[in-house]
Amino acid sequence: MKTINNIVIVGFGSIAQALLPLLTENYSANIIIFDKETNDIQKSIAKEFSITLKRKLITSDNFCEILTPLLSNTSFLLNLAVSVSSIALIDLAQRLDALYLDTCIEPWEYASHNDHCFISNHSLREQLKDYTRTKASTTTALVAHGANPGFISILLKKAMLEMATINKLTDRPITRTDWAELANRLELQVIQISERDTQVTSRVREHNNFMCTWSVDGLITECLQPAEMGWGTHEETIPNGAKINRYSLEMLEQGREVIVKSWSPNYLEFSAYLLTHNESLSIAEYLTLGDPTNPTYRPTVYYAYHPCDQAVESIQLLKEGSENPIQSKEIMKEDIVSGIDELGIFLISKKYKSFWLGSNLSIGKARKMANHNSATSLQVVSSIVAGMKWAELHPDSGVLESESLDWHYIYEFAERYWQPIVKQETDWQPNLSSDSLSFQNFRITPQH
Amino acid sequence: MKTINNIVIVGFGSIAQALLPLLTENYSANIIIFDKETNDIQKSIAKEFSITLKRKLITSDNFCEILTPLLSNTSFLLNLAVSVSSIALIDLAQRLDALYLDTCIEPWEYASHNDHCFISNHSLREQLKDYTRTKASTTTALVAHGANPGFISILLKKAMLEMATINKLTDRPITRTDWAELANRLELQVIQISERDTQVTSRVREHNNFMCTWSVDGLITECLQPAEMGWGTHEETIPNGAKINRYSLEMLEQGREVIVKSWSPNYLEFSAYLLTHNESLSIAEYLTLGDPTNPTYRPTVYYAYHPCDQAVESIQLLKEGSENPIQSKEIMKEDIVSGIDELGIFLISKKYKSFWLGSNLSIGKARKMANHNSATSLQVVSSIVAGMKWAELHPDSGVLESESLDWHYIYEFAERYWQPIVKQETDWQPNLSSDSLSFQNFRITPQH
Repeated sequence: MKTINNIVIVGFGSIAQALLPLLTENYSANIIIFDKETNDIQKSIAKEFSITLKRKLITSDNFCEILTPLLSNTSFLLNLAVSVSSIALIDLAQRLDALYLDTCIEPWEYASHNDHCFISNHSLREQLKDYTRTKASTTTALVAHGANPGFISILLKKAMLEMATINKLTDRPITRTDWAELANRLELQVIQISERDTQVTSRVREHNNFMCTWSVDGLITECLQPAEMGWGTHEETIPNGAKINRYSLEMLEQGREVIVKSWSPNYLEFSAYLLTHNESLSIAEYLTLGDPTNPTYRPTVYYAYHPCDQAVESIQLLKEGSENPIQSKEIMKEDIVSGIDELGIFLISKKYKSFWLGSNLSIGKARKMANHNSATSLQVVSSIVAGMKWAELHPDSGVLESESLDWHYIYEFAERYWQPIVKQETDWQPNLSSDSLSFQNFRITPQH
Repeated sequence: MKTINNIVIVGFGSIAQALLPLLTENYSANIIIFDKETNDIQKSIAKEFSITLKRKLITSDNFCEILTPLLSNTSFLLNLAVSVSSIALIDLAQRLDALYLDTCIEPWEYASHNDHCFISNHSLREQLKDYTRTKASTTTALVAHGANPGFISILLKKAMLEMATINKLTDRPITRTDWAELANRLELQVIQISERDTQVTSRVREHNNFMCTWSVDGLITECLQPAEMGWGTHEETIPNGAKINRYSLEMLEQGREVIVKSWSPNYLEFSAYLLTHNESLSIAEYLTLGDPTNPTYRPTVYYAYHPCDQAVESIQLLKEGSENPIQSKEIMKEDIVSGIDELGIFLISKKYKSFWLGSNLSIGKARKMANHNSATSLQVVSSIVAGMKWAELHPDSGVLESESLDWHYIYEFAERYWQPIVKQETDWQPNLSSDSLSFQNFRITPQH
């Protein structure tokens, strides 16, 4: 077990701000945070928690010089910024024997300035795997561990076990292959990460203002990246123009252009954006059986996200495929008047009733649990702290994703924040006139 | 089993309107509805469901003449109006062998015009019991069976059984005494009917406009009636000026003046009005052990209600103890933009962890389940239809309350409307510096 004396955070956006109440409750370490700009709210929160806030944009040119003096084998480096390279920071942290965590595998840049062609998560993920293969360091670096990606993979395992129990399967999976075999026995053809955010402010959104409940830049990036998912072995029809890279399928369309049907216990059927997310790929790969290039089983896995209504309106500003029309950006937090962030794992089976398990966390409870939080942020930051605690106990586990963690440990820590936990079986089908669970039966928007 | 050919409804407020989608789905009977006024919305809903709407105020002078020709042994009479006497309508229905249901035991008048002294629920309930003792009819009349009072007593039994299982008690209660003995073994000192409504419209409430999510007149009446609760055997200190009538305690204050602490899984601690409700009395009496006038065990039972924020603001209009300042009344329904109606039974034990079980139903799901509904109304109307179905199967059960029903049957019918069902153990205590569960530890407002 490591002792943590200092925590270095890159990025002081809504998630890092929301993290401070939990971080200071769990650590007495010194905390230093870097952000490109520091406004009055950031300064006030920094003061409230007695942390050091430095106004500095971390770039590929300066990260090594700035961060090296701050990191040692008693440090934790958290990368909570958009467009700060995970590989670069992991490399630095591992060389200095510091623990590392991020909530998304980030590049230095998402799009080349010439062609506005956004990088895919498959590419980011494979680059990181290539890096990991070439390095000998075993210092723990936990990547893509927020709410989703992150805690959703913990809920996946809990949900699979509960679904197995309901259907009288007695599996006790331990290894990755065990979990994949259980998924196969449950005949899970589609796994959705299903999210319906109903948080709302009382204000009317101004026309060119982009509002959402977490990082505006993060959401815009996901909307403009190609839609991407884990591609299952039951799928027969490849969407027009899509590229398959082993476990992943990258669509021709941007995420904001692909609308799919999803379902949740407290919203029933809803339409959702298919946004690229690391968990779509990591879960699909984790649950693959057989030769990875020609598997016998793999589920289709994707993130189906209906952000809060004011964010859905905001996404219309991206309809030309760029963020040029946006004149201001705003994170909804203190001014939210009601709503829940319903987020869970939805296991859709060919054989059994489908099963949804997740959180119905409300803004009211989130605020009582921790200052500076919404329901959205609390789901992320509680997972971060759970991941940090696990990393301290397992400081020599190398680079890893959430599927490789001890799910019981993470669940036990984060449960009280994610409650109420809702679970429900359902007969819901994407298409009443077909019993096929192929992707085109979930898709609402027509192909290009 | 009865066959129902016609349904007669007195009152066409928000609950009766919300009931029609479920009623027409479950019955092909003719439906006729009376209301004192009929506005365009009411006319439009009546047309949508092809029912007959008559503009007529039902009074003590005309009810017999108007309703008699409509009722027979194939009829169901639903009393969904404020200030239409339950006893009068039950008496008529039983004489004509028609089934009867209401969601509240109503008088013809709540207050005498001279002294503005509002009638208590204890008095209404005992008058009905007196009536029942003098009548021989066994035609089923189910009283006070909406969400609460009503379905909450079904959830009470489910919650008690789950709490018993968690704590390794093996009771299988059948009779009333069995249930009271289980409550005693669980050391339930306080049972709250705990409700935190977070539904919200995007509009700003006009100053003298009274807004709420169900009947404005119903809520105003409950706010102005004396605060009243089932009074437990563990209580030692009687609130100043309160009157004890066997199982009930009637306070000097009106309900709007008594604020208590409550707790729910998705709001944590909140402040709530202690409003008089039939279930506070019926549950307390049902769970009494020993001589009713000198019992060995009885829990304290009350309704702790935090209506939606716009209703809480509206209740301030009653601060002089009358409704004179109110210039307009408005039921929030189609214009709700977000929120849930978190409503459950909260079992607070001296010995075990406390246990909450109830609904987190959202406006989004409620709308998808049935037109013209909010989360609040759907909880009521699904319980009404479940109660009607039970009454048809048991047409000779006389006058009865929800505690006497087959709780499994009612739960099975209504569950899909009430989901997501949330259950949670908690260490919450009303007062951190005292382990007593006496009423004064829950009370926030000072005594008069």
